[in-house]
Amino acid sequence: MTTDSTRTDPVETGPLGIDDLPVREELRGKSPYGAPQLDVPVQLNTNENPYPLPEALVARIAERVTEAARGLNRYPDRDAVALRTELARYLTRTAGHRVATENIWAANGSNEVLQQLLQTFGGPGRTAIGFEPSYSMHALISRGTGTGWISGPRNDDFTIDTAAAVRAIAENRPEVVFITSPNNPTGTAVAAETVIELYEAAQAAGPSMVVVDEAYVEFSHRPSLLPLLQGRPHLVISRTMSKAFGAAGLRLGYLAACPAVVDAVQLVRLPYHLSAVTQATALAALEHTDTLLGYVEQLKTERDRLVAELRAIGYEVTDSDANFVQFGRFPDAHRAWQYLLDRGVLVRDNGVPGRLRVTAGTPAENDAFLDAVRELKKEQSA
Amino acid sequence: MTTDSTRTDPVETGPLGIDDLPVREELRGKSPYGAPQLDVPVQLNTNENPYPLPEALVARIAERVTEAARGLNRYPDRDAVALRTELARYLTRTAGHRVATENIWAANGSNEVLQQLLQTFGGPGRTAIGFEPSYSMHALISRGTGTGWISGPRNDDFTIDTAAAVRAIAENRPEVVFITSPNNPTGTAVAAETVIELYEAAQAAGPSMVVVDEAYVEFSHRPSLLPLLQGRPHLVISRTMSKAFGAAGLRLGYLAACPAVVDAVQLVRLPYHLSAVTQATALAALEHTDTLLGYVEQLKTERDRLVAELRAIGYEVTDSDANFVQFGRFPDAHRAWQYLLDRGVLVRDNGVPGRLRVTAGTPAENDAFLDAVRELKKEQSA
Repeated sequence: MTTDSTRTDPVETGPLGIDDLPVREELRGKSPYGAPQLDVPVQLNTNENPYPLPEALVARIAERVTEAARGLNRYPDRDAVALRTELARYLTRTAGHRVATENIWAANGSNEVLQQLLQTFGGPGRTAIGFEPSYSMHALISRGTGTGWISGPRNDDFTIDTAAAVRAIAENRPEVVFITSPNNPTGTAVAAETVIELYEAAQAAGPSMVVVDEAYVEFSHRPSLLPLLQGRPHLVISRTMSKAFGAAGLRLGYLAACPAVVDAVQLVRLPYHLSAVTQATALAALEHTDTLLGYVEQLKTERDRLVAELRAIGYEVTDSDANFVQFGRFPDAHRAWQYLLDRGVLVRDNGVPGRLRVTAGTPAENDAFLDAVRELKKEQSA
Repeated sequence: MTTDSTRTDPVETGPLGIDDLPVREELRGKSPYGAPQLDVPVQLNTNENPYPLPEALVARIAERVTEAARGLNRYPDRDAVALRTELARYLTRTAGHRVATENIWAANGSNEVLQQLLQTFGGPGRTAIGFEPSYSMHALISRGTGTGWISGPRNDDFTIDTAAAVRAIAENRPEVVFITSPNNPTGTAVAAETVIELYEAAQAAGPSMVVVDEAYVEFSHRPSLLPLLQGRPHLVISRTMSKAFGAAGLRLGYLAACPAVVDAVQLVRLPYHLSAVTQATALAALEHTDTLLGYVEQLKTERDRLVAELRAIGYEVTDSDANFVQFGRFPDAHRAWQYLLDRGVLVRDNGVPGRLRVTAGTPAENDAFLDAVRELKKEQSA
């Protein structure tokens, strides 16, 4: 027994490991999702925006949060109406299609939006399909909600093999179809015609919901797929403020769809899921949209430079519409990842054979990355 | 077609209602959870703390959020280590039992904590039991995670019927047992001996997890059940900052348990679920614990006054350890609810036959409530 009152040892209660607890069978032996959080000079591994919010926006956040904090003893607006209204205005202005508050739903990151969609339209006895490699949380959240997961095919150049995808939808009749555009971790946006073909296949097989994950769309050469909502009640577009708005720390994701979809997810959302400080901070960020989209333009230029220079060095690069670039090939991608890490540059090994993914950083960060991959190429060619 | 560019009509896409979408069968015909949010002078319906945060704390929140906003382009600390450390210190100091960071997990409201626990230990093919009437989200989150729900019994005075509860556990062998102490909406805390008996029944039947929901424990005449964690690896205590910390708008819930439970819920938590602004705001509030617990003492005095005066008026009142009071009986509780609402006082009709629930507000709010229920009593006796 210690008598030092400042010590706080863990309570010693029994089992040492997860598997000693009565957890669900499918969780046994699993590890939590998440990239290694390593402290290195150049962090280009999680597709964060390298530009801190401008000081004027930081000050506006403080103002709006102060106001929210004065009423923090009360529950937040359960329906986040003011925030959804501003998100609708943002989409209407930038994505070439008119949407209203009733078309928008928001949650703690697009992960929670996707979880709510799967609780509503997926779940036990139902399945979801995605075309892999893609955003790995689609499969993980499906499993977390008891939704069966079907891994659909892609072409060798990582575009969706439309004919094979249509066949997979017709054969498996999944209740939810995920399309990621631009795709993560490969980088390329999906043509509207492809989405229309898959949507029609999903209606013939279901009707099923089609969820287009546009987390990175502000960085794309192609316009948003938002106008496809017109006349397609089973289509959902999901978005996030983590990337284009430089607010990964805020955890604000949202969706646009027909109003009935917004009503439906409210049957499964936890009440008051979105805190008053989150709503206040997001509203402040939306006031500074133009400045933040200016940073997006800089990042697109840097992204295009990364693609061009990586190709000039001799790497194989997947076309990128995102704030990251997939490059290779490597006989051993993990060894190449470690080589770059040893030089202070952290990129992501997403498990795509022979490929790595680098986030577009500041010009200086990208230069450091390019120097390191030049060295790597020389060593590999030697 | 309108030409007014500021209009944002909902996109006209097909189905008018939820039931026209391919939602899960069990969601058809359901309505979202939530008390009516009505704009009346005296709002005593959702167990909010009536005292706004002190201005010194509001200023500290602004400071901490400003700091967090400067790094908002980066993901938040995925494991919320600083926050969990301060929550551990708070529990160690106030609940008579030493816990450490490794014993604590935090999420967006205790609802999300409970959802993660059910995703880990409940889910399809498993069941949870609660003793009703109790916090209705236990049943709703169970259903939302595909966990079967068993409604266990209570005595006529709303205490847990221990013998019947032990039998229900032995017969049904649920994987999760919920105990709410103090119970919501009835108000009474549960004796430690009862929790121990139910825990032992759950171990004999399972082993099963026992989750004690202590959302209102800071208002209780009885001490926290936290010391029961010692030697009970399948016990979980859940808490919230919504009530005692006067921060319903913050959405910060947490749990204390053995470290293996904390590891296990990380298998199902959405990555980066807790935003940097939420973590910053909660840390600021924890710096002002003493002031906030001072408000709790005032509310306990007011709660005791409500109990005494309601009994003096002639109402039947359930013993309260919470910041609310259950009272009755009414031949028609909903009519009594409407009578009070017509006089500008909003209380809660939780569906307990013949009873209503009132939150302890400021002395002036409680006076207004007591005036209205005196009138109501006179009318009913007339």
